[in-house]
Amino acid sequence: MKAVIFKGVNDVKVESVPEPVIVEQSDAIVRVTTAAICGSDLHIYHGKIPGTLPGMTLGHEYVGIVEEVGPQVREVRKGDRVVGPFHVACGMCRSCRRGAYNQCERGGVLGYGIAFGNYAGSQAQFVRIPFADFNLRKIPKDVSDEKALFAGDILTTAYGAVRNSGLLPGETVAVIGAGPVGLMAVMSAFVLGASQVFSIDLVKERVEQAAALGAIPIPSKEMNAKAKINEVTGGQGVDVVIEAVGGTPTLKLAFELVRGGGRVSAVGITSEDKFEFPLMQSLVSDLTFRIGVANIHRDIDAVLALLQAGRIDPTTTVTHRLALEEAQEGYRLFDEKKAGKVLLKV
Amino acid sequence: MKAVIFKGVNDVKVESVPEPVIVEQSDAIVRVTTAAICGSDLHIYHGKIPGTLPGMTLGHEYVGIVEEVGPQVREVRKGDRVVGPFHVACGMCRSCRRGAYNQCERGGVLGYGIAFGNYAGSQAQFVRIPFADFNLRKIPKDVSDEKALFAGDILTTAYGAVRNSGLLPGETVAVIGAGPVGLMAVMSAFVLGASQVFSIDLVKERVEQAAALGAIPIPSKEMNAKAKINEVTGGQGVDVVIEAVGGTPTLKLAFELVRGGGRVSAVGITSEDKFEFPLMQSLVSDLTFRIGVANIHRDIDAVLALLQAGRIDPTTTVTHRLALEEAQEGYRLFDEKKAGKVLLKV
Amino acid sequence: MKAVIFKGVNDVKVESVPEPVIVEQSDAIVRVTTAAICGSDLHIYHGKIPGTLPGMTLGHEYVGIVEEVGPQVREVRKGDRVVGPFHVACGMCRSCRRGAYNQCERGGVLGYGIAFGNYAGSQAQFVRIPFADFNLRKIPKDVSDEKALFAGDILTTAYGAVRNSGLLPGETVAVIGAGPVGLMAVMSAFVLGASQVFSIDLVKERVEQAAALGAIPIPSKEMNAKAKINEVTGGQGVDVVIEAVGGTPTLKLAFELVRGGGRVSAVGITSEDKFEFPLMQSLVSDLTFRIGVANIHRDIDAVLALLQAGRIDPTTTVTHRLALEEAQEGYRLFDEKKAGKVLLKV
Amino acid sequence: MKAVIFKGVNDVKVESVPEPVIVEQSDAIVRVTTAAICGSDLHIYHGKIPGTLPGMTLGHEYVGIVEEVGPQVREVRKGDRVVGPFHVACGMCRSCRRGAYNQCERGGVLGYGIAFGNYAGSQAQFVRIPFADFNLRKIPKDVSDEKALFAGDILTTAYGAVRNSGLLPGETVAVIGAGPVGLMAVMSAFVLGASQVFSIDLVKERVEQAAALGAIPIPSKEMNAKAKINEVTGGQGVDVVIEAVGGTPTLKLAFELVRGGGRVSAVGITSEDKFEFPLMQSLVSDLTFRIGVANIHRDIDAVLALLQAGRIDPTTTVTHRLALEEAQEGYRLFDEKKAGKVLLKV
Repeated sequence: MKAVIFKGVNDVKVESVPEPVIVEQSDAIVRVTTAAICGSDLHIYHGKIPGTLPGMTLGHEYVGIVEEVGPQVREVRKGDRVVGPFHVACGMCRSCRRGAYNQCERGGVLGYGIAFGNYAGSQAQFVRIPFADFNLRKIPKDVSDEKALFAGDILTTAYGAVRNSGLLPGETVAVIGAGPVGLMAVMSAFVLGASQVFSIDLVKERVEQAAALGAIPIPSKEMNAKAKINEVTGGQGVDVVIEAVGGTPTLKLAFELVRGGGRVSAVGITSEDKFEFPLMQSLVSDLTFRIGVANIHRDIDAVLALLQAGRIDPTTTVTHRLALEEAQEGYRLFDEKKAGKVLLKV
Repeated sequence: MKAVIFKGVNDVKVESVPEPVIVEQSDAIVRVTTAAICGSDLHIYHGKIPGTLPGMTLGHEYVGIVEEVGPQVREVRKGDRVVGPFHVACGMCRSCRRGAYNQCERGGVLGYGIAFGNYAGSQAQFVRIPFADFNLRKIPKDVSDEKALFAGDILTTAYGAVRNSGLLPGETVAVIGAGPVGLMAVMSAFVLGASQVFSIDLVKERVEQAAALGAIPIPSKEMNAKAKINEVTGGQGVDVVIEAVGGTPTLKLAFELVRGGGRVSAVGITSEDKFEFPLMQSLVSDLTFRIGVANIHRDIDAVLALLQAGRIDPTTTVTHRLALEEAQEGYRLFDEKKAGKVLLKV
Repeated sequence: MKAVIFKGVNDVKVESVPEPVIVEQSDAIVRVTTAAICGSDLHIYHGKIPGTLPGMTLGHEYVGIVEEVGPQVREVRKGDRVVGPFHVACGMCRSCRRGAYNQCERGGVLGYGIAFGNYAGSQAQFVRIPFADFNLRKIPKDVSDEKALFAGDILTTAYGAVRNSGLLPGETVAVIGAGPVGLMAVMSAFVLGASQVFSIDLVKERVEQAAALGAIPIPSKEMNAKAKINEVTGGQGVDVVIEAVGGTPTLKLAFELVRGGGRVSAVGITSEDKFEFPLMQSLVSDLTFRIGVANIHRDIDAVLALLQAGRIDPTTTVTHRLALEEAQEGYRLFDEKKAGKVLLKV
Repeated sequence: MKAVIFKGVNDVKVESVPEPVIVEQSDAIVRVTTAAICGSDLHIYHGKIPGTLPGMTLGHEYVGIVEEVGPQVREVRKGDRVVGPFHVACGMCRSCRRGAYNQCERGGVLGYGIAFGNYAGSQAQFVRIPFADFNLRKIPKDVSDEKALFAGDILTTAYGAVRNSGLLPGETVAVIGAGPVGLMAVMSAFVLGASQVFSIDLVKERVEQAAALGAIPIPSKEMNAKAKINEVTGGQGVDVVIEAVGGTPTLKLAFELVRGGGRVSAVGITSEDKFEFPLMQSLVSDLTFRIGVANIHRDIDAVLALLQAGRIDPTTTVTHRLALEEAQEGYRLFDEKKAGKVLLKV
């Protein structure tokens, strides 16, 4: 079959590799119909993720059709249209039983190398999904492939970050960053009951996209975010900040925008080891900070239900739909920031 | 001043009465600009509420302008545009301190007679509001008088009933009854993260109003509610039922529609003493049932924030805007079900 | 092997039956070391449960040693000391994924007949446990067999009923009934942060057992429960009532004892179809009522951790330890209320 | 009257000052019967708190008898035995209405200088309490003065830190620091449902006190905390860490002890401006961090109820009971760490 193969730093190629087969009786093989390139794929592309050896198949975002299931699979069957989380979990271990699926003792990330379970990726014609009952979801009939794909990763990541903030209905939210994840955080904040949502980004066109979703746009090159938020909130600051950029400057900004008693939730796309946490300010202001990789299994059913009901549409972030064979071009465009979300049609 | 006076069963008149004055130092006098007739005013009109003597001023829904405040009032001042809950609470007693404001030891309902604190009502040019700091809210500048009025009673009642159900984002909701409260429950369910919301009513025009809000309409004269819900939910039933009619038949229906592990929340407009609770079914299906008068103080700030953000618009339920002097006609129309929500402009 | 066989109404015998074998690859066979007789076993004994045919093996409370596992079982292995819930669940279906394990689409109750999955019971030398990964828990090394056994049924049932009440730390609780389940509700209420716990029972000796656990005893033959509770709570009533008897009189009492805004949680051992629910009182007082079969999987890990830490000791309710061969005598004593909890040593 | 007066760095004296009088109609004057010296009083003593001028009366922990109330005070009356939070709140502003009493727009701290509302302190014969209805609590009759005193500050601080951690029943907790606040965190963790609680301190005698409360002692001079916790928890780490020392080394330790998906809650007695937050570790491990000054009003009623029920006893931390006149000696002993909790009997 065809698959997107990591060849080395800044080098991917579509090549022929053997098709995956059922290994465990709880496995399924999925024929991928659409895959996508994720921001975190670029970390591998840039050679930053230890344990990602040349020759491995990339990708962890996908939808497809179940091609074959092991004899212990009960929830899906051949022919089902399915989506699954970017990370796999067993559903039975101590971590899973307390809902910490992203800490699963048998877990891993598709196409993310040896340190993450050594699973072949989903940018391919077929992908093997372990613990299929727990890691595949049938896509509701009213949900398109493209919409469903986002439930397996960045939409549910953004949604989870908003949930992690403990947002209460009627509260105000500032989302820092208006890339795909930031825009989905805006959507999620509204679905979860936010009153006013501020969208902050250096790029004016991006916050305009957020404005179209109902957010108050703050193009931060030409407008002071703190001043604007203070003006609208009567000097209080927002109840919740979602940090969707990663890195020290935007984390710092998050703590400037949040009100006393508020919460900062970082979506988590960072590569920095440390952050100078404002301890004294947080002590006086009674703040909560949360950061972590997404816990997709916790929220994917809710997100699929919301997609089915038409309450969220993540496909507005798609800029390119390429054939799987064009993946090399897709990586290049995405890496050079000439593309938003890139889908690979298989 | 002019006020709507209860004269006896099915008899109200607009008459001249003395203006209210500051009694406690924590009181405020509000000049009413818009009042409304509530379904529960009809209980008095029908002579069903003990302790409602002829001569009393009716009404508990209002917005207005602060006319005067006692020396201990700090949160509002003369000239502020305000709204307040239909029931008053002190904010300091044991019940209030645990958030059970509707169980306040010093509480009562405006214009509801001796058994409810003996407060003069708000269908008048002026109304005295006790514990003004705790019972008045400044109306945000982007919220119209008419929208704000609903925050003091039926919108927040409906919103609270949905919150009381413990609705989780992505869950499905059936709202039984599509009168004003039912429609506001539909709005609230969406704001609080529902995926699909079913609106059930015998009157087709009413569920069509709900459909315009995004609900799946079930005109129950021509469509079997249980069959329709089972079809859409794959035979499961809904996660949450909001019962917004009152009375045994609709409560019974509620328990037919809810899934195992689900919740039934009654908005509470009932006059029946008992209900034959389906004990065995609930035991097997693990159900929760909640009924109670609204706890407006708990939710009014969130509701005002959501109104300000434009996320809810309750004014679509208004059918008549009359002058205060026309209150008699307003009561008649409302009682004969020839009107939806009736506002009285003062 | 030896097993306790249902022969007909009021008739059980220990007989030889074939040993169970692995059927599904996710099964385990457990060599039972201690089983127990549950109040709900008596419903079968009395011929009240449809689908319980003579010849079936009884019992759903057990601890034991894993004897054999299917090839897909990962969480336990031969030789592990284990306990499991009285009801089995798959852990993967829609109900399980939302935590409603007691509504599992593939679930059932061990030894409870055709209507409950047709599983052989655990009052036997060996029992087959389906979905072993999800339905067996390794017993922590500091927890005795006898303590662990209760985590699989009545302790976790009582604990779950208290959790279902939404008890907040510092709140007051009345537990109606001081049989084994009632006593465990008292223990659970304390562990979950209750301040004062009242134990109400007609039998004085029983409430004295509760008093030894720290409860305020109310022997209701000689003391008026409502008067006593009002005296202690300053006329308010309790925040939470746990109804652990079943049936109309005690449910009625529950609603007399609860404060406005409070919650009634029924443990659920009832055989009545209907209950005359006090609708008007509940409307005025803003009450929540919850009833349902226990959801053991949700809470068993927490309960085992609390047993391990020595924070609960359910074995004080044991009055008889018989050999499996004496099961007939055990059923008779328990049925005639001459025994508290009866254990069967295998 | 006699009062403890701040004279300058490391200098306090008991002097005669005028008695306080009712200023606002919602004020009360309390005749103090017991006051205490708090760790945070030492910050003033050391000259570290801006706006604390020589001549001011110190102290914010107290119990006493209501001497006089303003005409708008309804909840307490002359002769009532009362306790109150160290910080005062109005109960009506936007912050208070959302439960952020520690962010009250009219709030302050008794005896903490100009920057904290300029209120005279409680280490005196009399103290004026503003917003008395909201800032005084009647002490339940079964609760001694000494026990109640702790509800107004450090017990409720510790309790609140545990609640802020989102502790679930059955979870494990590590409390770093076994001074008075740390010991009260241990007590609180048990009351709130913890299974195992680890107490970590360099001083062996202190962790032995924690062991007497049921904790697993870790004298960290002679035992590696991480190794011990990993041994007991099967290598997982604890669900929750309460950091009750303040400062970088113990915060760093907190992040070493917590499991993936866990939470670190700092009690907040720090004077450091920044903390090098382990961003990458937290991202991978999905961690939550919370720090803030205590929100006493939120929890004081629950804590008083738990004291009344005998579920917590904070007086074990008292080492010295001095006369008010001996305050100078009390400060010296406490500052030189020759005393635990010092009470001043008035």
